[in-house]
Amino acid sequence: MKWWGWGDPERRVELPATSVGAIRDELGVEPGAGNEPVSIDLVSLPEARPIPDALRASADELLDGHDDRIRYATGRSYPDLVRLRTGRLEHAPDAVLRPADAAGVESVLDACAAAGVAVVPFGGGTSVVGGLEALADGHSAVVSLELSRLRSVELDSQSLTARLGPGLTGPEAEAALGALGATLGHFPQSFEEATIGGFAATRSAGQASSGYGRFDDVVTAIELAAPAGRLRTREIPHTAAGPSLRELVLGSEGTLGVITDVSCRVRPAPRSRVYEGWIAEDFHAGREIVRDLAQRHEAPDVLRLSDEEETRVSLELAGTEGLRRRALDAYLSIRRRRGGCLMICGWEGERDDVSRRRGLSQARLRLGGAVPLGRSAGNSWHRSRYGGPYLRDELISLGVLVETLETAHTWSRLDELYLAVGNALRGTLGERSIVMCHVSHAYPDGASLYFTFLTRARPGEELDQWRAAKSAACEAIVATEGTITHHHAVGRDHAPYMRAEVGDLGLEALRAVKERLDPAGIMNPGKLLPAE
Amino acid sequence: MKWWGWGDPERRVELPATSVGAIRDELGVEPGAGNEPVSIDLVSLPEARPIPDALRASADELLDGHDDRIRYATGRSYPDLVRLRTGRLEHAPDAVLRPADAAGVESVLDACAAAGVAVVPFGGGTSVVGGLEALADGHSAVVSLELSRLRSVELDSQSLTARLGPGLTGPEAEAALGALGATLGHFPQSFEEATIGGFAATRSAGQASSGYGRFDDVVTAIELAAPAGRLRTREIPHTAAGPSLRELVLGSEGTLGVITDVSCRVRPAPRSRVYEGWIAEDFHAGREIVRDLAQRHEAPDVLRLSDEEETRVSLELAGTEGLRRRALDAYLSIRRRRGGCLMICGWEGERDDVSRRRGLSQARLRLGGAVPLGRSAGNSWHRSRYGGPYLRDELISLGVLVETLETAHTWSRLDELYLAVGNALRGTLGERSIVMCHVSHAYPDGASLYFTFLTRARPGEELDQWRAAKSAACEAIVATEGTITHHHAVGRDHAPYMRAEVGDLGLEALRAVKERLDPAGIMNPGKLLPAE
Repeated sequence: MKWWGWGDPERRVELPATSVGAIRDELGVEPGAGNEPVSIDLVSLPEARPIPDALRASADELLDGHDDRIRYATGRSYPDLVRLRTGRLEHAPDAVLRPADAAGVESVLDACAAAGVAVVPFGGGTSVVGGLEALADGHSAVVSLELSRLRSVELDSQSLTARLGPGLTGPEAEAALGALGATLGHFPQSFEEATIGGFAATRSAGQASSGYGRFDDVVTAIELAAPAGRLRTREIPHTAAGPSLRELVLGSEGTLGVITDVSCRVRPAPRSRVYEGWIAEDFHAGREIVRDLAQRHEAPDVLRLSDEEETRVSLELAGTEGLRRRALDAYLSIRRRRGGCLMICGWEGERDDVSRRRGLSQARLRLGGAVPLGRSAGNSWHRSRYGGPYLRDELISLGVLVETLETAHTWSRLDELYLAVGNALRGTLGERSIVMCHVSHAYPDGASLYFTFLTRARPGEELDQWRAAKSAACEAIVATEGTITHHHAVGRDHAPYMRAEVGDLGLEALRAVKERLDPAGIMNPGKLLPAE
Repeated sequence: MKWWGWGDPERRVELPATSVGAIRDELGVEPGAGNEPVSIDLVSLPEARPIPDALRASADELLDGHDDRIRYATGRSYPDLVRLRTGRLEHAPDAVLRPADAAGVESVLDACAAAGVAVVPFGGGTSVVGGLEALADGHSAVVSLELSRLRSVELDSQSLTARLGPGLTGPEAEAALGALGATLGHFPQSFEEATIGGFAATRSAGQASSGYGRFDDVVTAIELAAPAGRLRTREIPHTAAGPSLRELVLGSEGTLGVITDVSCRVRPAPRSRVYEGWIAEDFHAGREIVRDLAQRHEAPDVLRLSDEEETRVSLELAGTEGLRRRALDAYLSIRRRRGGCLMICGWEGERDDVSRRRGLSQARLRLGGAVPLGRSAGNSWHRSRYGGPYLRDELISLGVLVETLETAHTWSRLDELYLAVGNALRGTLGERSIVMCHVSHAYPDGASLYFTFLTRARPGEELDQWRAAKSAACEAIVATEGTITHHHAVGRDHAPYMRAEVGDLGLEALRAVKERLDPAGIMNPGKLLPAE
C-alpha cells in the first residue's frame, strides 16, 4: 500500500479533465489549491519509546525504522490521509511486531502484558474510523501487531466451510479458495487491502453481502488470543448454549484480544455473474423497490440505490465515459426529463438460478417504475468497484475534503434518518459542497445509508472541517436512533457515541468483558469504548 | 397447563391399542407397570421461606398457595414430570410474583436485590433442561417471576417488525399478528405453551426455522431488565457498533435479567402451505439430500429426516393410521423392501413461490433416490406436530422412560456425532430400549440431530436411569466436539458441560457480564453457568 494513501503505488485512477473542472467549479476549489504528499523522510513522528528486551525477544520479527513506524501508524480515514500527506503524525507505534503464527501472537501478548505495553492488532491497515491509531493511553509504549504471516487456508469441502488465517487479504483468500472451486463472496470496497481478521474484528459488510451474507453472517467459529488466555468457539452450524461468544468476538476491534483463526461458510464459485444498471424515478420510488425486493427475499446479491445527488455526481462528474453516455441517453430519452436515481443490481451463482432471480427482480423493478440501463452500466460499476479509495486520493490532491460515513435504520424511520444526516452535513459544510447518499445494504426490516460528502479543503484546517461535519452527522444519527455505524465499525471516531448506541448498562457489559479478558487494558486502547 | 404434565388438561393423545402392545413388548414393560399422577394435595414441597414485606409490596400480584407453588416449581423435562407425578418436589418457589408491566418487573428486581431473594423468570414453563428449577442457591428465598401479563403487540407494517411482550404464548402472538396479516413463523413443538420471552431467552428453534429463521435470527431488538439497570438494543436492521449485545441477551436464560420486550421480523401470513412425506433409501442417502438442499439454499421451510429406527417407530408404533398405511404401502411396493427413512418437507408462502421451491426440492429428492409418500403423510405430521409432549404423558403413564435431547455438528462430523450419541445411549439403556434420531434443522455447514430414547422405567429409579443416559449422551457430544444443545438451551442439566462447550475463558467472559449485570447473583441461580 502507498504509505500516504490507498492501494498499489503504481496504480492511479485518473479523473477526466472535464470532471476535474466541474468539481472545482461546484466546490469553489482553485486550480493549484491541492497538495502532493510530503516526502516520507520529512514526516514528523513522536520519538520512539523504548521496547523492553523481553518483548523484543518474544517477537518473531520486529520493525522499528522511521518508515515502518509511519506505515503502521494509521488507517485510511480522511484525517489519517491528511496527517500522512502533511507529514504530521501525532501517534505512531514504537515498533511493529510480526508474529509467525498464533503461538507467536500469544508470546507477544504475554510479553506486552508483563511489560505494560499497549498493542494495536493490525491487518490490512484500512480502518476508516481511527481503529488503528497507535495510542499508548498511559502504557509504557505501544506496538502494532502485524498479522500478515498468519495466512493458512483449510477447506472442509463437505461442510462448505474454510478455516482462514486472519492475515489473509481479500484477494489472497479468494485466490486460495478459488483454486478449490469456492468463494467467500465478501467484497467490501477495501477488498484488495483488507484482511480476514479485520473483516471479523469490524463486522465488515461487502458489496455482495445481500446475497452472500455480511462477514459476521458467514463466520461459523472464531479464535481469540486474549491477554487472559485463548477463547475458541465450537465449529458447529448453530448452538443454543448461552449468549453467543462468537458474536462477542466479532466486532471487538482488537480491544479484547487478537483474532487468530476464523472459520467461514463458503460457496461454490459462481459460474455466472450478471450486473446491470437501472434508473428509478426518484429516491423514494427506488427505496420502495428495494424494500419490496428485500421483504420478498428476492433481492439481488448486489443491490445499491443512489439518491438524486449521488446519481448526478456519478453520471456527470465521476462516472466512466461508458456509463455516463448510456445512462444519460436512457434517462433523457426514455423518461424525457432529468432526474432519477441510479440502481446497481448484481446476481451471482448458477446460470439457471441467476436467470430466474434476475427475472423476478426485473419484474419488481419495472413495477416500481424503474427503467433498465443495461449491463454495460452494471459492468462499469463492477469494474470500478474498488476504485473509490484511489479516486479519493486524486480528489484530496486537488484540494477537496472527501469522506464517507454510514448508518442504518428500519424502513419506517429511514427517511427521517436520511433527511437528518443530509441536513446536518449540508448545514455544516455550507452551500458549495456535495452531500450524496446511497442505500448500500437492504434487509427485510430496514437498510443502510452510505453518505459521501465533498467540500473545499481549507489548508491547515482540514481536520477541524472534518470534525465539525463528522460530529454533526453522528449527532443527527444518534438523535434519530439510527446506528452510529452499519459496517465501518467504531474505532476511535465513533467511540464517543457508544453510550448513546448501547446505553449505560450495555457499556458496562462490554467493559466487564474487556476487564476480564484484558486485565491490564493493553488491547487497542482508546477504541470502541468511550473514555470513562 | 396440566399441573403434572403437558398442555390442555382436557386433551389427550391416545395411543392405539396395537401400538401400546408393541411398545410394551419391545421395551419389556408389563401391563399395569405405569402410574397415574398423585393428587396435587399429596405433593410434598419444601416449606416456604418467608417473603420480605418490601418484596410483597413491590409485586403487582403475588401467589403463594400450595398449588401455585407446584405449578411454578418445574419445567417439563422427564425428571420434572417424574417429580411432579410422584409428588416429590425438592424445590419450589416460595412465592410467584406476577408484575403488570416492565416497570413492575423492575420493582420486583429492585426489591429482590435489596432483600437477597433469588428470581426465576417464568414464561410458559416449558423448559426441558431444568431451566426453571427454583433454586435459592444461598439466597434467603426464591420467587418465580411470572410474565404472562406482559402481552403487548405492536406491528410496524412498513418495516415488517413487531414489538412483542415476553409473556405472549406462541398462539397468542400468532393470533394477534395474524389479525394484522402477519406471522412470526416460529413453531417449536412447545408452541402452544411457550412464550416470546422464553423463545428469546433460550435461542429457540422452530419446526419451520429452516424457512423463517430460528428465533435468534428474527429478533431485531431486545430489552433486558437486569438488577443493575435496563439494557435495550437499538431497533435497527444491523449494526457494526461493537460486539453484539443482542446476542448476549439472547440465550441468557434469565441469568442476566428479565427480557421485557422483543422486536422481531415478521412475514406476511402465507397464502399457501404444502406438506408432504418422502422416503429416503437410508439415513445416509437422506442426509446427503438434506445437505444438498441446504447447500443450494433450496431447503424447504420445514425439512426433517428420521433415521431408520425413528421411521420404523413412527410408522409402526406411533404413527397415525393414515400415515402408516400409505407409508408402508409406498415403501413396500415401490422399494420392494423394508427400510428407508421418513422425510417431512413443508413449504409456506405465496402460491407461486411455494410451487417453484417445491419443484426444485422434489427434483433434488428424486435425484437422491427418495420416493414421495404424498401430502397426506405430510399433513398427518403437520396435524400432530404439537402432539409429542401429550404422547409423552401417555407413555410415562404406561411405565416408559422417554426423553429427547439434541445437538448439532458440521456435515463432515455429523456421522461421528450420530454414532457416538446413539451408541452412548444404547450402551446405557440396554437392549430392550429404543434410541431414534432425526435431523431437525439443516444449514449449509451442518445440521442438528434430535434424539428420542425410550426404555422401561424402573419405579423409584427413574431419575437415576435418566441421569445415566443423559450423562452418557452429553459426554459423547462433548468428546465429539458437537454442541451440547442446538435449541433446548442449557438450564441446569447442561450447565456442567458449559466449560467444555465454551472453554475457561469463554466462561470467564460470561461470568464477568453476569457479575456486572446481576451483582448479587439473584438471577436464575444454578442455570447456564456451572458451579464454580
